[in-house]
Amino acid sequence: MNQLQGIGAAAGLSIGRAIWWRTHQPIVTDHSVQNVDQELIHFANAINQARDEIGQLRKQAAQRMGESEAAVFDAHLVFLDDPAFTGEMEQRIKTLQKNAAWVCQEVTKETKQLLSSLDDEYMRARADDVGDVGGRLLLILTGSKPFDPSQLHAGDVVVADELTPSQTAQFPEGIAGMVTARGSQTAHAAIMARTLGIPAVLGLGASIEQIHSRDTIIVNGTTGECILKPDADTIAQIEEQIKQQQDLQEKALLEAAKDAVTADGKRIQVFANIGGPQDIQPALDNKAEGVGLFRTEFLYLDNQDWPSEDEQYAAYRQVLEAFAPHPVIIRTLDIGGDKELPYAQLPKEENPFLGHRAIRYCLDHPEIFCTQLRALLRASQHGNLWIMLPMIENVAEINKTKQLLEQCKAELDRRNQTYNEDIPLGIMIEVPAAAVIADQLAKEVDFMSIGTNDLTQYTLAADRGNEKVAHLYDAAHPAVLRLIHLACDAAAKQGIPIGMCGELAGDKALTKLLIGLGLDELSMSANSIPQVKQKVRKTDYQVAKEQTEQILTTAIDGQQVRDSLTTK
Amino acid sequence: MNQLQGIGAAAGLSIGRAIWWRTHQPIVTDHSVQNVDQELIHFANAINQARDEIGQLRKQAAQRMGESEAAVFDAHLVFLDDPAFTGEMEQRIKTLQKNAAWVCQEVTKETKQLLSSLDDEYMRARADDVGDVGGRLLLILTGSKPFDPSQLHAGDVVVADELTPSQTAQFPEGIAGMVTARGSQTAHAAIMARTLGIPAVLGLGASIEQIHSRDTIIVNGTTGECILKPDADTIAQIEEQIKQQQDLQEKALLEAAKDAVTADGKRIQVFANIGGPQDIQPALDNKAEGVGLFRTEFLYLDNQDWPSEDEQYAAYRQVLEAFAPHPVIIRTLDIGGDKELPYAQLPKEENPFLGHRAIRYCLDHPEIFCTQLRALLRASQHGNLWIMLPMIENVAEINKTKQLLEQCKAELDRRNQTYNEDIPLGIMIEVPAAAVIADQLAKEVDFMSIGTNDLTQYTLAADRGNEKVAHLYDAAHPAVLRLIHLACDAAAKQGIPIGMCGELAGDKALTKLLIGLGLDELSMSANSIPQVKQKVRKTDYQVAKEQTEQILTTAIDGQQVRDSLTTK
Repeated sequence: MNQLQGIGAAAGLSIGRAIWWRTHQPIVTDHSVQNVDQELIHFANAINQARDEIGQLRKQAAQRMGESEAAVFDAHLVFLDDPAFTGEMEQRIKTLQKNAAWVCQEVTKETKQLLSSLDDEYMRARADDVGDVGGRLLLILTGSKPFDPSQLHAGDVVVADELTPSQTAQFPEGIAGMVTARGSQTAHAAIMARTLGIPAVLGLGASIEQIHSRDTIIVNGTTGECILKPDADTIAQIEEQIKQQQDLQEKALLEAAKDAVTADGKRIQVFANIGGPQDIQPALDNKAEGVGLFRTEFLYLDNQDWPSEDEQYAAYRQVLEAFAPHPVIIRTLDIGGDKELPYAQLPKEENPFLGHRAIRYCLDHPEIFCTQLRALLRASQHGNLWIMLPMIENVAEINKTKQLLEQCKAELDRRNQTYNEDIPLGIMIEVPAAAVIADQLAKEVDFMSIGTNDLTQYTLAADRGNEKVAHLYDAAHPAVLRLIHLACDAAAKQGIPIGMCGELAGDKALTKLLIGLGLDELSMSANSIPQVKQKVRKTDYQVAKEQTEQILTTAIDGQQVRDSLTTK
Repeated sequence: MNQLQGIGAAAGLSIGRAIWWRTHQPIVTDHSVQNVDQELIHFANAINQARDEIGQLRKQAAQRMGESEAAVFDAHLVFLDDPAFTGEMEQRIKTLQKNAAWVCQEVTKETKQLLSSLDDEYMRARADDVGDVGGRLLLILTGSKPFDPSQLHAGDVVVADELTPSQTAQFPEGIAGMVTARGSQTAHAAIMARTLGIPAVLGLGASIEQIHSRDTIIVNGTTGECILKPDADTIAQIEEQIKQQQDLQEKALLEAAKDAVTADGKRIQVFANIGGPQDIQPALDNKAEGVGLFRTEFLYLDNQDWPSEDEQYAAYRQVLEAFAPHPVIIRTLDIGGDKELPYAQLPKEENPFLGHRAIRYCLDHPEIFCTQLRALLRASQHGNLWIMLPMIENVAEINKTKQLLEQCKAELDRRNQTYNEDIPLGIMIEVPAAAVIADQLAKEVDFMSIGTNDLTQYTLAADRGNEKVAHLYDAAHPAVLRLIHLACDAAAKQGIPIGMCGELAGDKALTKLLIGLGLDELSMSANSIPQVKQKVRKTDYQVAKEQTEQILTTAIDGQQVRDSLTTK
């Protein structure tokens, strides 16, 4: 039995059989080619095959992980057509009259080196993409066999030096865990693991070589710990823990259909966050009482071009019908920040999270925004639609949106298309300014919803994707909670409902605090709903309110907040 | 007379004689070289000459604009030794046996194209650097003559397609203005113009070709307007305006030595922000009553390696002695964000403003932080030192710093070196969280100071360097003002002084509001001090307080805030 410590990159506990996914690149030497034209055809065929393979991987990734995760393959396709990359290879085959495989190997190496040398995280990610694409081409050109993913089975823990998106996309269902030597919380592999719900420990370094294929391994993606070849006692103990967690969830699920009402009678709506049609069924299964955040980005990330009004209409209608008569809060387009859109050609910004994103982008591109608003208006007939605007920070942004909505209604009138006249319009409170002037904003809207992820990173000036400030990023920091409290007070004074749709909402250790802050609705990942509902039922609202006010005055950090909740 | 509209990039009004700074690059063709070794020597000599020239420019820039502006030349020096750039040139001279000038031209072109193609603002800036360095090498290799800056004289307005840092560094004293076809508010040329106090209009586009050398031109860097060949009336009018502005400033200067006390007797301290020794004299000339922000970055940016304790001690002592017995608030190292430090090898972050900067970096590198703290402690004997910590957002950061200070004192005790035992320790309020929990932080420190630049960009989630969200960045946004008010209240309750050292402090249109918010001290660029002092004397504190509270309740944006101040 051997304990290895890495970075917990995707929470969860599992036990499984280790399988090494080794990637051996062939190493080729140069030789002159007699028939350059034939070599160019060989090269062009390889590019076509690579394009097919990448397209296939993209499709798999989109189905299994959603469109935003599949988008990395679009970057691969771009490199496949890049004049400075494959164009350069073609050029060198012509001028040097050398074998395509060697040219491919050299240009890949040079381009990767150049990008890596630039000391820029973004560029280093591109260097990985280039390595992935170039490696694929080289395998095809040399007729080499890559690792065969059909060797992987449910219950296996994949072990690798590092895992590329191409690799994770090929995982079969039921992979028990992921363990890598390199990588961080923000690595693509980490994001994919979280999306797939696979416990992952990354960054094990050289100690990973202690793991051999077919070893039994315990992966604790919460603590970053791996236990190699555990003894029978440990296995029994871990299996018991896994079972307990499953039992708790199953028990909660049995009561999930009941409303969430506090002990003293305050009704809390427990909603689901959804990111696309694939999330509808899990939300229904877990008895979501509505959708607190429907992210519409998948429609945009999924596309090679701006999605049409009809496409959007169909997608919104599908979700609205699935949940009717329950409310579905659809958030208008939130691109920029960490969400890129190849065809939008967003310029790279120095600080994208402080940049031209979400409502800012939409108001500057009314043609794109109005297409979405018209689609939403038309879909409003098919269910209980609420429209929510992201990144609002002043009254003018709300008024401009209202004007555009009126224009869109007029356009639909001209077309003789119908819509619901009274769609609730709300805003996200995720920029600190919005919380601070929530009293002014509340007068202009029908509801508000706290986006804790962004609110936290702006309030604390700590990028949630930056490991070096990860210790500062804490949604339970008293400053964040005070801002939430301010917004809840403003909503109550104005008599409008206020919810929360950031990650904090699903943290059942904090449910009491969130109720005490005055939130009326909590929206979260579907599988958190049953246990949070249980938690609501055990909470007394008046007690929670008093305790929360006490905590807001005295606690000086997130840890003290959490501690006061567990001790009392 | 002809009016041209560009982007006002550095405020101010001036009139002068246009001089075109045209940069013609030689275009060379390739030819084979017989003696490759000789060509390599020719190339090596050119690199050495370029290194000397750049070093010279760096020195000029450091003296005239300060170290942070000179740092761009460090990037140039790095490219001069880059294996992928000059290394690649050397390689190609060897393998292709071609003339160095042509190889230099080709590699520069390719590298520049590659970097530009990456659709990344940071990389595009590097592309400009590569163009600058490659262009310089090419001129040396071909023995071509560049534009001779000795043609420029005081009173001239420099006109150019665009201006590189190499060029602005060669401006003689007294240049009246800068006008370019390309560039933006955030271009290097714009930053340098603001530092040098030269009115600048950038981004004129093709219309710039209407300007000819020796034309008279009026440059309004505030509005972005240029008037070409103005008639006599216009010249008289503009000269009158310039004179009026100078008169106002001179009149204010006459009274500058008097204290700034409001009409009803509240004393407001008016301090200077300084960035290095070169700012001491202007601050004294403008009768600063102390230093509200001494940025210590110049010591670090100026160096090829971490500055020693003795170097820092000497610099702090110089400033403390110059202002004694007045207070000098020295801010501890604030690197990261937009301030890079080559030898620190800070990794490029996705959102540097939300990253590992300032106190975060210092607490993670105690050896670097303690060197500074020891230097500060030793310097404390030579004047009235106050120590200020940037980017604080929780109590733990303050406590950790206090612990390090104690360790540093113990070390000095061991060394038998003396220091002031009771140095006031304060914090900047620039992260929104700090304003929100100012009541908790105030208990731990001796003073606080609002950093409006960062506080604004975080509160509004708008990068102050990003043109696309420039319309959102407004320090007078009611949310920012409410947070400042919160911090002022907390300071008053705790009985500690609170100041402001961001750009807002020097905006005399807002002085009344700042007094009304409860600030005790305002710190600004030296030349704003005399007029702000006048403004303070005309203000009644009680009236300002009531009006400010009114504005904080009713104004919904920065414009309404400014309007209420001018109408009442």
